[in-house]
Order: sequence, then structure tokens, then C-alpha cells
Amino acid sequence: MKPFNVAIAGLGTVGGGAVALLQKNAALIEKRAQRPVRIVALSARDKTKDRGLDLSGIAWVDDPCALAQREDVDVVCELIGGTDGKAAELCTATLTAGKALVTANKALLAARGGALAALAQKHGGALMFEAAVAGGIPAIKVVRESLAGNSLSCVQGILNGTCNYILTRMEAEGLDFEPVLRDAQKLGYAEADPSADIDGHDTAHKLAVLSALAFGCPPEASRPVVEGIRRLTQADIRYARELGFRIKLLGVARYDVAQGLEQWVAPCLVPVEAALAKVDGVLNAVQLEGDAVGPLALIGRGAGAMATASSVVGDLVDLARGIRPQPWGQAVDGLSALPPKDETAEGASWYIRLQVADKVGVLADIASILRDRAISIATILQRGEAAPEGGVVPVIIVTHHAPKAAITEAVAGLAALPDSGERPLCLRIEG
Amino acid sequence: MKPFNVAIAGLGTVGGGAVALLQKNAALIEKRAQRPVRIVALSARDKTKDRGLDLSGIAWVDDPCALAQREDVDVVCELIGGTDGKAAELCTATLTAGKALVTANKALLAARGGALAALAQKHGGALMFEAAVAGGIPAIKVVRESLAGNSLSCVQGILNGTCNYILTRMEAEGLDFEPVLRDAQKLGYAEADPSADIDGHDTAHKLAVLSALAFGCPPEASRPVVEGIRRLTQADIRYARELGFRIKLLGVARYDVAQGLEQWVAPCLVPVEAALAKVDGVLNAVQLEGDAVGPLALIGRGAGAMATASSVVGDLVDLARGIRPQPWGQAVDGLSALPPKDETAEGASWYIRLQVADKVGVLADIASILRDRAISIATILQRGEAAPEGGVVPVIIVTHHAPKAAITEAVAGLAALPDSGERPLCLRIEG
Repeated sequence: MKPFNVAIAGLGTVGGGAVALLQKNAALIEKRAQRPVRIVALSARDKTKDRGLDLSGIAWVDDPCALAQREDVDVVCELIGGTDGKAAELCTATLTAGKALVTANKALLAARGGALAALAQKHGGALMFEAAVAGGIPAIKVVRESLAGNSLSCVQGILNGTCNYILTRMEAEGLDFEPVLRDAQKLGYAEADPSADIDGHDTAHKLAVLSALAFGCPPEASRPVVEGIRRLTQADIRYARELGFRIKLLGVARYDVAQGLEQWVAPCLVPVEAALAKVDGVLNAVQLEGDAVGPLALIGRGAGAMATASSVVGDLVDLARGIRPQPWGQAVDGLSALPPKDETAEGASWYIRLQVADKVGVLADIASILRDRAISIATILQRGEAAPEGGVVPVIIVTHHAPKAAITEAVAGLAALPDSGERPLCLRIEG
Repeated sequence: MKPFNVAIAGLGTVGGGAVALLQKNAALIEKRAQRPVRIVALSARDKTKDRGLDLSGIAWVDDPCALAQREDVDVVCELIGGTDGKAAELCTATLTAGKALVTANKALLAARGGALAALAQKHGGALMFEAAVAGGIPAIKVVRESLAGNSLSCVQGILNGTCNYILTRMEAEGLDFEPVLRDAQKLGYAEADPSADIDGHDTAHKLAVLSALAFGCPPEASRPVVEGIRRLTQADIRYARELGFRIKLLGVARYDVAQGLEQWVAPCLVPVEAALAKVDGVLNAVQLEGDAVGPLALIGRGAGAMATASSVVGDLVDLARGIRPQPWGQAVDGLSALPPKDETAEGASWYIRLQVADKVGVLADIASILRDRAISIATILQRGEAAPEGGVVPVIIVTHHAPKAAITEAVAGLAALPDSGERPLCLRIEG
């Protein structure tokens, strides 16, 4: 049967992994796709760089957009990344040419995923992006296809390998955020500019993609509230542990018709015995809740060359088999923005760390601020440690269930206490 | 667009769930399938039984095989079960008519899955069976499609909700096997004839299906070695716990080119901190290992009307979307039987419970039997309990890593000890 011809743009971690995997398992892939799946053209920034790959017999083009115009190309894999410049241009060119596009670009999907799907629909192309969310975990296909009979109420999880790696090492080694981040950068687990990962934006992009699939809203309309992990200290990890929790960066999207769509990214305390608490290092987890299936959890490698390549190649085999699913699981014009949930009405238990002056009456002030907002205290920790220079000591409060609005007000009140140190840190307790 | 017309045969737990789900989420399903998915015909044993379903406007036929011949039917869901009689006849008739078949019948797939796929291929039909393995967990699609780029080395898990429910209750409530089984039967979690579940055959059928998909062998050629949970006692659960383990019925299939295919179903000791140890009640877990994706775990409801219906409807939406995958992920004639691994060469640590006469020298006898097979003892437990009537007391041995052949010989030797009680129980320690 006619070979299925692949072009790859970008030979970084994911692109290099895709080339290696297509070559390594070529015979197996041909058997499953029932036709050869072969790389016919490539584009990357530096032609001369040694990537340890055999690129012989593969055409090289300097301008990735040229891949979209080649007669011999059935599918273009955009593995460049970024929302501006070449990646976006290549995606548009590929879809406009009526070709199939496979991409791992969650930022682009979150910014323009509906528009790209509309292009695919208009020109008879296809848009696949399993590799964009949670690395090797097949979350996209499971939501789009396996759970198509379900009305979904929740999709959430640990979606960023970099943050999970940092938090895991902070806990395992008793280190603070900054040194672990620097080490992660040295080891290639965090980028030189780590903001997209550690400030939660990458998780937010992935959550927007999952939300769109699960709840049928355009990804562009999906705007999670985002908080990253920069402010977490070793002390928070330790206090959380003492209270029976671990800290994980979660992306959470919940929908119900009556209340609307709740969507946020934030570091949370999860009970040590919860499944998510055990997802360590570069593992990711996606938890889904459907009215028929009930709870469903998928756990696997959220990053890494080969795990992500597994998702790219899974999409390629689908395409080679002639499968061209609707990118968002339904016609693009059927997607509709969902009313956001009034987030101040969200309730949870909360962990609050604040710095207070080490003097008489300060606990009474804290307690009355919370009482005035009808927030009930479950636990309060203040160590009899000598106040360090500056005269402030940490106080940890765990509240009973309280609305977010009340907590936000209370935290503002706590921040305004005289002699209070750093802005209080407030984390949700999930599960 | 033209509606997609469904016929359902069998209105038991799964069939009733499928009807209810197709009706409940009809609008959502139509949006995702981009055409109405409607039930046009039904067949079940008793037309008059009240199932709490609205069956108005749906044609009723007494002979399920008549569904395959109806002009107005695009797909037949065989949800009758069993390998003989009507279920098999209906599957053959449906595929011979060139129609799509959706089935939850793992026994039939394990017995004749290759032949059914060949029929589908010959007549241009389709064969889908997500609901046959692990209830609502989309294990079939993930292996067949998402991991198509991987060379797989392992597929294993907890695949039988009945056994897992019984073991979970034995541990939680300190009860013995028989009373929990009887209660499970009363509650509908176990069948009147529980053999298929508790003797491990159901798990073996599911494992054969997963093996075929993962490793490309015909399901008919896949013959796991099977051991069930009948011999487990409350004492085993308790001893295991004391040693840091929980007992789970696992189905395990591992393949590598050099050693061949290892496939078995058996109750195993898994460390309490392992992910599988936490899969309780009717939850199932499927763990996969691929050369690219690494380890991947799927956890969800392994049984129940709606969870299993979720899988049936997922298949129906795929079919309505025009997706007709190769049932076994490749052409049927490409499947080939794999050489079995020499199972005596399998190594593991082992848990052995034996009954011995409560008299001088018996521990020396046990120790020398093990020493003679070069089996090293990691732990031995003998309580100073007064011997009950009959004069035998339990001894628990945990071995270091030892080949199965040596253990089998040693267990035979232990069974032949004078005054030994019940045949020794020997369980593998996994993970």
C-alpha cells in the first residue's frame, strides 16, 4: 500500500524522539498502520548539529513552511513550539494546504485551537495533538473518543513535569525552590526561562485543551485562573507533610450546568494517601469524571523525548489508517463558551502561611480576622522558635471548609496586620 | 445527517446500561457523532420484564439473530454473553452480513477473536470490544491506537471486579472467603455460579485479549496459566499484611523476543505502597509498558452497568463517526503465535503457607527441603499458638528470589512431609 509520508519541523527533544521512534519501530508501525510510515522531509534550525540521528535519505528544507507545500508530504508534524513566528505560520500553511497537522504545541492550541480546527475542517485536513498534553498519556484520545458517551463533570491533574520534578525534589531532599530550579535547569528538566512552567501557564494551556474536549467550549475561550509554584518554600513542603499532605501543582476544570465552569491552576495540598500525592517526578496524572464511567485516572510520563514521541506516532498511525477525528470531538461551530463559575463561591479548606511579628496579641488578631469572616480554624501551628532577625515568625493555619471570597478577604486582612512580613501564602486543600 | 442505527441483544446489566446511556446523553452523543445514534431494535429473553427502561418505539425481536438481518440496522451490540448458543451465532451472523459488531464478550473473543476479526475483514464489517476488558477503562483503544508506535513488553493488571471486591472485603472486614462470596452473590457482585470469576478464567480471557493487541498473537493462541482465589484464607490476608503486602488477583503478560511470552493469572502479594495495592473494590487497573511511553497506568471502574455502557457507547460513537479500526490493531493474517516462555525459569520471591505437625524437628525438615533446592528464606513466621485439633499449625515462609521450577519442587516436598495438613499454598510476590 502507498506509504504515508511524514514531514517533521523541529528536531528538539520531541522532534528528535519522533524521528528515532519512527525509525526504531518502523516494521511494527508499518504492520499496524498497514502501510509504511516514512519521514520524507525535515526542517530544523541547525542543519549541521549532530543529534545522533540518521537523517540520510530525508529531504532537508530550511524554511519549515516549505514542508506544507511539498507534494510528497501527507502530514506535517509541528514540533517547533511557541505561539508566534514559524510554528504558527507552519500550522496555518499546513492546514490551508489541506494536509494533516500533528502538533505538540499546547500554547498555540490554547490561543488558537478553535481557529486551527476550523481551517482543518474547511480544507479537508486534520489536526491531531495527543502530544500537547501530558506527554505519553493518551488523555486527548480518551476524552475525545473513549468517553464520547459521557457527560463529563471534571478533568484535572498534574500536567507539568517540570513543576512536579521540582516539588518532588524539594520534598525528597529538603531543599528550597531556587536551588532545585537551578539544578533542574542544569539537567535540562527546566528551561533557561522557566516562567511558562513554574508560573503555571503551561499547565493552564493543557487544561484549556482538556476543558475544550471535555466540555465543548472553544479552547480560546478557556481562561483558567493561574498561580505557579514560585512562592513555595521548603517550610511549606514540611508543614504540609506534618499536616498529612503533599503539595502538587494541579490544573482543575469542573463543569456543571447550574454553576458553570470552574477552571484554575494552583499549587494545592493533597492528602498523602490520595492517588495524586503519589505521582512523582516527571510523571503526570489526568483524572476524569464522567456520568457513566465514573472516575478514571491515567498516569504516565508527562515529558521526555520518547514518551512524547509515543503520542506523536500514535497520531501518525491513526492518520495513516485513514482516521481523521474532529479535533475537538465535534464540529468547531458546535463549540460554545461556557459561563464561568462565580469563583468567590468556590469552597475548600485552605492552608495559610503568614509571617507575623513575634509579640503579644498577634494570635488574637489573626483569630478575630478569621472569625469576622466566619472562617473556622481546623489547625494552627506556631513553633516556639526564636524569631529571626526582623522579628517575624511563621504561623500556619488550616481552615475548615470556607468560601474563596471569605478567604480572599481574610488574607487581605492578615496582610494588613502591623509588622506582618511577606504577603501571606494561601493554598487550597484538594481531595 | 443519516442516523446511525443500533440494535441491542441482551438487556442484562450491560445491555440495560447501554440503552439508558444512549437515551440519557442522546443530544451530546449526536453532537459528538455528528449524527443521531438511535436504538432501532432490541432482543432479550423476556419481553415482559420491567427493566425501568423506556423501550417505546424500538422494534422487539425474539430471536437475536434476526437483528443481523434487519435492513435498518447498522450495528449490532451483542451483550448476551457466553461462548455457545445465541451469542456466538449472533456475532457470526452480524459479521457475515457485513455489519458492525460491538461486543462485551471476552470469553468469545478469547475463544474465537481472530476468526471473528477475519469475518469482519472478509465482509467489510467491523468488530469492536472496548467493553470486554476492564469495564469503563479504555484499555483496548489505548493499546490498539494510542500506543501503536510502541513495542510493548508488558500488559498486566487487576481485571476482575468480583475477585477484587471479595479480596477487599476480606481484608477490610477480617472475613473469610466463603462468607464474603455468599454475600457478594446476594448483592449481585458475584454470579450464582461464581467459577468464571473466582477461578480466574474471566481474568484469563481479558488477558488473552490484551495480549493479542499488545503483542500481535491471535487471542485463540493465548493460553494463560490460571489460578483463582478460592484457596485464600483470612489468615493469608493477615499474614500478607503483616509482611507489608496485600493480596490481589493479577493477570500478567510479558513478552520479549529472547525469552518468549509469559502469561498467567494468579493471586499475588503486592507491596502495600504499590499502585496496584490501592486499587480496591470494583476498581480495575491496567498497567502497560512500552519502549517509548514507558509505564502507563489506567485505573477506573471495572464493572457496573454504566461504566461498561460507557465503553459500549464509545465504540458506537467511533463507528458512527466512520471509524472502523482493525479489531486487533493489524490485519488478522499478520497475527502470529508467540513461543511461550519456559515458565519454570520465571523467577520471583514467593509466599508459602503450609500446615505442619506441631512437633520437634519440623522446622529443620522444612529448612532442609528449601536448602536442597537452593532456595533462600527471607522470613519465616511460626506463631507460638496452641495447635488446634489435628495437631497442625501454620508456618509462613517468604523466600528470596527463586526460580519457579525450584519452588514447585520444594512445595511438592513440603506437601509430602509426614503429618502435613492441607496442600501448601504458594503465592508469587510481585513488584
